[in-house]
Amino acid sequence: MAINAFAAKAAGARLEPFSYEPGPLGPLDVEVAVTHCGICHSDPAMIDNEWHSSSYPVVPGHEIIGTVAAKGERVTGLEIGQRAGIGWQCSSCGHCEYCRTAREHLCAQEVDTIIGHFGGFADRVRAKAEFVVPIPDTLASAEAAPLLCAGNTVFTPMLRHGVNGTMRAAVVGIGGLGHVALQFLSKIGCEVTAISSTHSKDAEARGFGATDFIATKGTDELKKAADRFDFIISTVSASLPWNDYIAALRPQGTLVVVGVPDADLQISAFGIIGREKMVAGGRAGSPWDIRRMLDFAARNQVKAMIEKYPMSKVNDALDRLRSGHARYRVVLEA
Amino acid sequence: MAINAFAAKAAGARLEPFSYEPGPLGPLDVEVAVTHCGICHSDPAMIDNEWHSSSYPVVPGHEIIGTVAAKGERVTGLEIGQRAGIGWQCSSCGHCEYCRTAREHLCAQEVDTIIGHFGGFADRVRAKAEFVVPIPDTLASAEAAPLLCAGNTVFTPMLRHGVNGTMRAAVVGIGGLGHVALQFLSKIGCEVTAISSTHSKDAEARGFGATDFIATKGTDELKKAADRFDFIISTVSASLPWNDYIAALRPQGTLVVVGVPDADLQISAFGIIGREKMVAGGRAGSPWDIRRMLDFAARNQVKAMIEKYPMSKVNDALDRLRSGHARYRVVLEA
Repeated sequence: MAINAFAAKAAGARLEPFSYEPGPLGPLDVEVAVTHCGICHSDPAMIDNEWHSSSYPVVPGHEIIGTVAAKGERVTGLEIGQRAGIGWQCSSCGHCEYCRTAREHLCAQEVDTIIGHFGGFADRVRAKAEFVVPIPDTLASAEAAPLLCAGNTVFTPMLRHGVNGTMRAAVVGIGGLGHVALQFLSKIGCEVTAISSTHSKDAEARGFGATDFIATKGTDELKKAADRFDFIISTVSASLPWNDYIAALRPQGTLVVVGVPDADLQISAFGIIGREKMVAGGRAGSPWDIRRMLDFAARNQVKAMIEKYPMSKVNDALDRLRSGHARYRVVLEA
Repeated sequence: MAINAFAAKAAGARLEPFSYEPGPLGPLDVEVAVTHCGICHSDPAMIDNEWHSSSYPVVPGHEIIGTVAAKGERVTGLEIGQRAGIGWQCSSCGHCEYCRTAREHLCAQEVDTIIGHFGGFADRVRAKAEFVVPIPDTLASAEAAPLLCAGNTVFTPMLRHGVNGTMRAAVVGIGGLGHVALQFLSKIGCEVTAISSTHSKDAEARGFGATDFIATKGTDELKKAADRFDFIISTVSASLPWNDYIAALRPQGTLVVVGVPDADLQISAFGIIGREKMVAGGRAGSPWDIRRMLDFAARNQVKAMIEKYPMSKVNDALDRLRSGHARYRVVLEA
């Protein structure tokens, strides 16, 4: 049965209805009937071929929640009708060292849900069973959908770099990723500072758990924060004065970059050597990382603040995201 | 009793005999009679004020081995006549979180042995007792002296970043630091690759434990090593094509920079994000890091390859180091 989706047929194009025949369901594949799909900044990036890896038609959507509609004969651990989600990644080789060690996102043959594969702006979507994760009962689908990518992208580096509640942490950029990162760090027990260009999101950031706020534009607030943070996560796609952020790290502190700036990072060697500092790349992790993150979110009431659009208004929803005014994530509903 | 040293009285000056009165020995201080002192590249850097932190007269020397000549009344754990060493650091506050957790090198009040303090190009030198470390019996003083800084500088990042014998490691720059790093990594059990501009040190590098050698100048050997190393340590002071080295890292791999290049590092955000890679600054660690390193070196026969000069020929020894031809460390003998 054909899958009805929305696709961009060329770089920068508006989305149009697009049907495709998915073919027979593989023995290890699962088909999910989409009820909700968040819109991530990497969706318009792929529509626009910003990262030069798009293959058209692009069916965006990789913050997917729905119900298991069909499963291959060898699929275990998932039942028809069960609520489940799919994130940035939908397949991998299954046998390399990364797949064998719950790090499928590092598999050289990983398939991203919206690159060379049709994503979740659709009535149904497919993925290998390992990449279809159950959703804890207490999470509402609309508010949990953005956790599949935005939540995973910010929580995974916290796991990877051993963030714990005795640390002082900062989040740069208070948007789709940042507003979730503030919640995670606060619920972990950290002292949490929000960093944004202006104070316009100050009150909301405190609502998400920030205890302090630094505005960088035309102020010396960041310079005054020298030697202050054990962990900084940058969610913005702009080039920052990186050495000022490194100066804001405490000894042995880590700056994690998950947003993709348009130019190389400029890093002072003395800035990282003298106090053993680190700069790391961070990204959405494995299905197991997603499961742990969802479990933590359910137990600690972490959820995205969202604006809902019906799936049929997908272009309006994309326009809203592109406007930069969405507070803080846009979610499509079937 | 006056201490007889060699000092540079201005930036770039030749060393001259220089005597100073050290004053009464503090209750927690130790005086070491110097028998051997390695010359590190940071000695000429401080003589030349290359890092803009020199205070003249500069008495260089921070790879010191000698015997305990005097100790303050409250010093415990060290006996008169005992062989002991002093490295990059000679004092710290003693009560901050870093001093309390065996990370004295990160103390905001740490004192470096040759910055605002007179170093080991002298008949005697002083340090706080915690910074005077016993030398294991089986290590020969001349060959162990360079371990106090060069060895500590490369071994500490291996400890910090969890290097283990299942990893593939590379050392960039086969000099005073690099030739010791190759030995440590080999004795840890890693697969070890030496990286240098040409193949001129190929045979010697293999003697230090390298199983492979990459020459970068005018070759594509580094590009062919894409996705190969878990751990790369760069000991050179030149600006490298950093993104090529990051490409040579495996997923979740770490590039540690211990040499100080003359310009900011240029790091591709995509290069570190896609496979969760890290760039870290590394440096000489704490006295406890030195003790562990010396213990490992003694048990596993790690030693510097050296050229010896009498202390009285210190300027000749410095010229030899500056020539770049020393194989691989120059050590002064009393």
